[in-house]
Amino acid sequence: MRNNEVAYTEYTADSPGRERSPSQGGGSDYNKLISDRECIIADIRQGPGSRSTRAYVRAGPREHLHFDPSSTVAAIVTCGGLCPGLNNVIRELTNTLHYLYGVKKVLGVRGGYAGFYNPEWEPIVLTPEAVANIHHDGGTFLGSSRGGFQMDGTIAFLEKHKVNQLFVIGGDGTHRGAFKIHEECMARKMNVGVCGIPKTIDNDVDHIDRSFGFSSAVQAAQSAIRTAKTEAMCNLPNGIGIVKLMGRSAGFVAVHAAMSSGDVDLCLVPEVPIVLGGEKGCLPHLMRRVREQGYAVVVVAEGAGEELLGESEEVDASGNKKLPKIGEFLKEKIGEYFGKHSKEPATVKYVDPSYMIRSCPANAADSLYCMQLAQNAVHGVMAGYTGFSVGLCNNRMVLLPIPELCETSPRTMDAHGRTWERVLSITRQPNTAAPKKKGEKAKYAPMLR
Amino acid sequence: MRNNEVAYTEYTADSPGRERSPSQGGGSDYNKLISDRECIIADIRQGPGSRSTRAYVRAGPREHLHFDPSSTVAAIVTCGGLCPGLNNVIRELTNTLHYLYGVKKVLGVRGGYAGFYNPEWEPIVLTPEAVANIHHDGGTFLGSSRGGFQMDGTIAFLEKHKVNQLFVIGGDGTHRGAFKIHEECMARKMNVGVCGIPKTIDNDVDHIDRSFGFSSAVQAAQSAIRTAKTEAMCNLPNGIGIVKLMGRSAGFVAVHAAMSSGDVDLCLVPEVPIVLGGEKGCLPHLMRRVREQGYAVVVVAEGAGEELLGESEEVDASGNKKLPKIGEFLKEKIGEYFGKHSKEPATVKYVDPSYMIRSCPANAADSLYCMQLAQNAVHGVMAGYTGFSVGLCNNRMVLLPIPELCETSPRTMDAHGRTWERVLSITRQPNTAAPKKKGEKAKYAPMLR
Amino acid sequence: MRNNEVAYTEYTADSPGRERSPSQGGGSDYNKLISDRECIIADIRQGPGSRSTRAYVRAGPREHLHFDPSSTVAAIVTCGGLCPGLNNVIRELTNTLHYLYGVKKVLGVRGGYAGFYNPEWEPIVLTPEAVANIHHDGGTFLGSSRGGFQMDGTIAFLEKHKVNQLFVIGGDGTHRGAFKIHEECMARKMNVGVCGIPKTIDNDVDHIDRSFGFSSAVQAAQSAIRTAKTEAMCNLPNGIGIVKLMGRSAGFVAVHAAMSSGDVDLCLVPEVPIVLGGEKGCLPHLMRRVREQGYAVVVVAEGAGEELLGESEEVDASGNKKLPKIGEFLKEKIGEYFGKHSKEPATVKYVDPSYMIRSCPANAADSLYCMQLAQNAVHGVMAGYTGFSVGLCNNRMVLLPIPELCETSPRTMDAHGRTWERVLSITRQPNTAAPKKKGEKAKYAPMLR
Amino acid sequence: MRNNEVAYTEYTADSPGRERSPSQGGGSDYNKLISDRECIIADIRQGPGSRSTRAYVRAGPREHLHFDPSSTVAAIVTCGGLCPGLNNVIRELTNTLHYLYGVKKVLGVRGGYAGFYNPEWEPIVLTPEAVANIHHDGGTFLGSSRGGFQMDGTIAFLEKHKVNQLFVIGGDGTHRGAFKIHEECMARKMNVGVCGIPKTIDNDVDHIDRSFGFSSAVQAAQSAIRTAKTEAMCNLPNGIGIVKLMGRSAGFVAVHAAMSSGDVDLCLVPEVPIVLGGEKGCLPHLMRRVREQGYAVVVVAEGAGEELLGESEEVDASGNKKLPKIGEFLKEKIGEYFGKHSKEPATVKYVDPSYMIRSCPANAADSLYCMQLAQNAVHGVMAGYTGFSVGLCNNRMVLLPIPELCETSPRTMDAHGRTWERVLSITRQPNTAAPKKKGEKAKYAPMLR
Repeated sequence: MRNNEVAYTEYTADSPGRERSPSQGGGSDYNKLISDRECIIADIRQGPGSRSTRAYVRAGPREHLHFDPSSTVAAIVTCGGLCPGLNNVIRELTNTLHYLYGVKKVLGVRGGYAGFYNPEWEPIVLTPEAVANIHHDGGTFLGSSRGGFQMDGTIAFLEKHKVNQLFVIGGDGTHRGAFKIHEECMARKMNVGVCGIPKTIDNDVDHIDRSFGFSSAVQAAQSAIRTAKTEAMCNLPNGIGIVKLMGRSAGFVAVHAAMSSGDVDLCLVPEVPIVLGGEKGCLPHLMRRVREQGYAVVVVAEGAGEELLGESEEVDASGNKKLPKIGEFLKEKIGEYFGKHSKEPATVKYVDPSYMIRSCPANAADSLYCMQLAQNAVHGVMAGYTGFSVGLCNNRMVLLPIPELCETSPRTMDAHGRTWERVLSITRQPNTAAPKKKGEKAKYAPMLR
Repeated sequence: MRNNEVAYTEYTADSPGRERSPSQGGGSDYNKLISDRECIIADIRQGPGSRSTRAYVRAGPREHLHFDPSSTVAAIVTCGGLCPGLNNVIRELTNTLHYLYGVKKVLGVRGGYAGFYNPEWEPIVLTPEAVANIHHDGGTFLGSSRGGFQMDGTIAFLEKHKVNQLFVIGGDGTHRGAFKIHEECMARKMNVGVCGIPKTIDNDVDHIDRSFGFSSAVQAAQSAIRTAKTEAMCNLPNGIGIVKLMGRSAGFVAVHAAMSSGDVDLCLVPEVPIVLGGEKGCLPHLMRRVREQGYAVVVVAEGAGEELLGESEEVDASGNKKLPKIGEFLKEKIGEYFGKHSKEPATVKYVDPSYMIRSCPANAADSLYCMQLAQNAVHGVMAGYTGFSVGLCNNRMVLLPIPELCETSPRTMDAHGRTWERVLSITRQPNTAAPKKKGEKAKYAPMLR
Repeated sequence: MRNNEVAYTEYTADSPGRERSPSQGGGSDYNKLISDRECIIADIRQGPGSRSTRAYVRAGPREHLHFDPSSTVAAIVTCGGLCPGLNNVIRELTNTLHYLYGVKKVLGVRGGYAGFYNPEWEPIVLTPEAVANIHHDGGTFLGSSRGGFQMDGTIAFLEKHKVNQLFVIGGDGTHRGAFKIHEECMARKMNVGVCGIPKTIDNDVDHIDRSFGFSSAVQAAQSAIRTAKTEAMCNLPNGIGIVKLMGRSAGFVAVHAAMSSGDVDLCLVPEVPIVLGGEKGCLPHLMRRVREQGYAVVVVAEGAGEELLGESEEVDASGNKKLPKIGEFLKEKIGEYFGKHSKEPATVKYVDPSYMIRSCPANAADSLYCMQLAQNAVHGVMAGYTGFSVGLCNNRMVLLPIPELCETSPRTMDAHGRTWERVLSITRQPNTAAPKKKGEKAKYAPMLR
Repeated sequence: MRNNEVAYTEYTADSPGRERSPSQGGGSDYNKLISDRECIIADIRQGPGSRSTRAYVRAGPREHLHFDPSSTVAAIVTCGGLCPGLNNVIRELTNTLHYLYGVKKVLGVRGGYAGFYNPEWEPIVLTPEAVANIHHDGGTFLGSSRGGFQMDGTIAFLEKHKVNQLFVIGGDGTHRGAFKIHEECMARKMNVGVCGIPKTIDNDVDHIDRSFGFSSAVQAAQSAIRTAKTEAMCNLPNGIGIVKLMGRSAGFVAVHAAMSSGDVDLCLVPEVPIVLGGEKGCLPHLMRRVREQGYAVVVVAEGAGEELLGESEEVDASGNKKLPKIGEFLKEKIGEYFGKHSKEPATVKYVDPSYMIRSCPANAADSLYCMQLAQNAVHGVMAGYTGFSVGLCNNRMVLLPIPELCETSPRTMDAHGRTWERVLSITRQPNTAAPKKKGEKAKYAPMLR
């Protein structure tokens, strides 16, 4: 049942694992060791006919180390958009390497993948003192950037600085890059352990319970929803507040923020088509809600409504397609609908918290999760695992093979799963998800189950 | 020195002031009474040649009451956009009327001026129980709306409900309406005391130290600025964060938020023209700041830059001119400038907290101020003052004649005053204010002096 | 593998399950139904020799209903101390009963178990309107109290109000009472479904991933720790900040708050003995930390140190043993130790946030969890389950038999588990847990694994 | 009308003021200069018979400078307990000296007055880079301590480091020390400008509208009061929440926190005697409030009730008298009173936020105030003023002679003033202030007037 793809221990022969002893660590004696044979069952929902097959290697400190801490040089890089908790991960990687394993040199690569080769961005030497207080700030101490992946520059950096452990924090694209680095290192017989740590504000990396920072982002979105509710309640007549939240193709932020707030009357996500009028229309639903309670609150993911508005041809600097302006579109349509069907017009207020939900510091739950991720990433790499990622699966820390993680990422919300049903139950909006086709395999509905 | 315009006591003859006694109040014996002859000096800055002339009547409980609480019916209305503290004012008006004076009936007019005559918006009976917890919520318990002023409907409402005290919470436009109601009541010999309470998120009502809710809004803007700073610091290369804040013609929110944050490198307001390039240009200044510290933060008031972008002809539903999109314009210009003058592009992030700064509950300082405003509004009306407003002047509560208040409102920031100099000192941006013309009378720089 | 003890469906014969149809619900068509045969594996950690045995019935809406919503009367009661999220649970129980199932009558029992019979506490009729905004406030809309369980009064209440669904929110003691009510109802052939919802600020109810409100409490504790850190850093010489947190016999709040903060140098819990001096002493450890970084931060659970201070004989009004004053004791001992071993004295600041960590509103994550708990509690009772509780197990919602839940509750932290090792890794304090005895069965280390 | 005691310009003869020019400053041209002849009227309340006499020199940049920035060395020291905004003041002093005046060397004295001579506490060199982000943290970047004033060590420090500008941030005791340093420097003909900046969490420094950090502390106290309210409302029967707040001899924090919250039913301060029972007793008042609304909230200043509990003989390490435990005392008395006079006991919850109200970062209003204080402190010293302090007087920045400031500091709340009347009006508690004696001069009621 052991997932063999995780561990790449081929090179342990010529750089043999060392006995773990207090003298290697920074004075801490770690007693609770995890065996390579322990795993965590992934498919824990069982019913008539289920056959449990998937399981992941359990994360944690191992008895034998692949690397000698005294000759270990680690590097950390953060890629892509900001996410609450990046600094917690950087700090705990540094502290774990330094204090638990006695690694003396940790480098922080600046500005994402481009930092491997951009001559103006010298790496930062990371020590416990340097990172002592960074976890109280949002953002990333190292800086980040989108794209910029370049194999040659990266390998040159690793060689120049004698890096043999690389920690890459980023989304599915970043993980694909990390896996290529791992493969290249293997091909070149470089003894480099490569570990990814999934970072996505959209929570769209598959197989894990949730990505770090997601809980903080959902929390931060609450004040925007509260704003929309207050504006809607207090601006007469027919107050309607619209909040746009992040989520280009996955609506997790929107649905979780809506469910957490308890104040949302309509939630629109990319996974479920928007129907404006008619029996299942969202506009008549809004009017009903306004008549019942005097106002209504809408949460819409930025990527919703492509089926209505058409896909834009334009792309922005990062190569992302420009999204149709669903928020403004809705505002206009609501205005028109009330203009036609109501004696008095709608008073629509539009709120876009944008980066405010992702630039905040990690909340307590995410801080703790980041600590777990960082510690287990180091445990894994020190033990000789490479080409892997870490994450919570069924509330347990596991090691995940990057290819498996990338295969189904980015994930989207299952329009026929329990999460969406919960949204419907609290908003009481009409369900416009296309009926499940016969034989259609359910998508993986990851978080609420 | 007494400002006679404040007090309209003509009708005290036929409805004579009553002795204040514990039996009239709700059990509280108020010992500290303020005489009508006490006033607060308004022009307290003195120098060679100054001649102090202006002073306002000091607010506070008076010995003689014009109204008999047992036959008093009060009405409260909130007009215009939301502002932190509206519920505190409503609650404290209700409590003061009820507990301090023993007034039995207080009506809440729903939805602003339109609530006087809109048949669907029945007034709410306000009791201490009904308003017990509303101060913890943003918005207004009564609802609000823009415009809607109509004399006949208003008078009819006052007559129908036998209202003899009217408390009107709103900006300079609302105050003009309130004064007309007062004049109409005087003309019709209706014994109605009319009091305005200045409410403006832009802090543009003149003569007062600050308007309630302004401190909370400036506080709420901090997290948007912090977002912009985090995004700018962490997104390489050349990160620049832009925050747009409220302020159509007055930049007080923008300048106060910028000064409070301590993190702003460029602050643009309607009162000072924007110069893009050249020696005094804001774009070269931004590039300098980016070179010095790696990033820069911009705060821009929504009404800034009209001289650059031209005045829009379009108006929105409330009759406000549509503002040029200064935020997007700046984003584009910064991109172009860095494209031309820098090896690497700028990474610009734009944040618009919009209603999030005005829908929050009042902070502690505003809560206390609202309590003072409401208590002194009631003290003034009970004593027979009418056609007046209340506010802090030189940190003391005073009664202000509405015409005087309206004459110079909405006010704007003095581009040659100390506030703007303070902004320049912390942002170190070039000063693009036109030099003061000879003989030009300084505008009134209201808050920081 | 089905855990048969959960379902008490004996009485389904004479009150037969009804087909679920849209007409029964409040208009929502719930498509995703869960079969009684679906379960969630509890023991998901597998290794050589493991044999998975435990599993719980999966929570969720069922096809057949045991109760006819039109004749259902539900009652909700909250018992014991406050906890973030109580109002979310009350609100969502009400909404789910009303909107999803069409139940017309929901009663809120006031003031805990005593509310069943205290003549002065009439139950509150709970409607969606009545509970519309309660989730934004901490505390419980119904009021609560400790103890007060009385079988006769409870049964009389159920009979008088024709209650056939009872939702009891409380800790392990409250659950024991709930199970007795269930047994009494069965014995009396009363068709009453009884469901518990685990509530414990200490997170000491066993078998579930975490209890609702725990995440919010850990979050709320952060500002107390931050206070202690600021005071310790800034008050020279030898600043030490001590924070006391809740936890009479389980240190979960203390350890999670410490791990989340990343700022704690010493964490003391009831599960691990306190050693003051000597090689493993916490006082020399603190002095080391002060010498390294200039200050130190201590988090101590209120129940820690009984082995040092002795067990108090006194009990408080609720029958809880009075705890020794561990905070003051530590303050004194630290003062003495620095007095002896340091040239300059220690500056010790003591912070006790007490109820501030439990009276706050639920954060976003807890709000969502409360929604899941409430919905699944209703789904379970409507389907005919009784004598059960609900909770997250391995990140999935399950139904749990109350006797099994109570058997090992209140749980404590495993002093030999991964959670405690994580605390040691971040505080770097000496491990004073007694070594695991041979053959000693590990306690269940519930959350971080 | 000019207050001559402020300016000590005797030594301007031998170190003549220099023309202010752009080349001296850091590039900023400061246009708005304040003349030494401008002043701010302090006694602005006028009535029959008032004669305005007091006025203070208006703060602000002067045309002529006493010091040559290129040879200026400034030192900053923070003394006494923490207060929100200390870091803002340190940062803005540094930035103003550096950027506005071009001063090259600024030293931060560590750990309060003791830092002048404690050999282990080397001063910190303060640059704009070093202080760039400190304003987002509570506490003081320099560290602080109580007491420790020593003239010789201080003078030696000033001489050794060639300091000619000293900025001392602290309370009235600290100001007394600062004035002695100023006198000693004058006596020794040392050309040292000494400026105090009033810092007191209790707001007990006289003559100024408010001290910095006070607004943040009052804000921070709100969540403790909210906790007490929630606990009181939700814990049946007869829930009563008690909050203890700072204030050894002045109750400003308590009264402002109570007024801001709007939720307090009884407020007890050192300035007004506590009466337990009888007609004016606070216990019968509490019982009335509990009967009216089901619960009650009490705020008590730590120094209240000395007349009841007796003055303690004990002193703590700082020489402060140990305060009687008024919080616990009240809890006990309330318990006894309800035991005797109520069918059901009281459920009393006691909350002591202690340092949590003073260790937080400054809020927006205080941040701005700190900026004004720091800028004007530097303006004053650069212009040759010494032995002075700065502050807001009637909402204007003024320079205050330290002896005048110290003469009536620490101030206390006027038990016959408007602030206390406002407290009575919202709590509706009986007034137990001793009646004003005939001819008794009113104490100065500083903030709400």
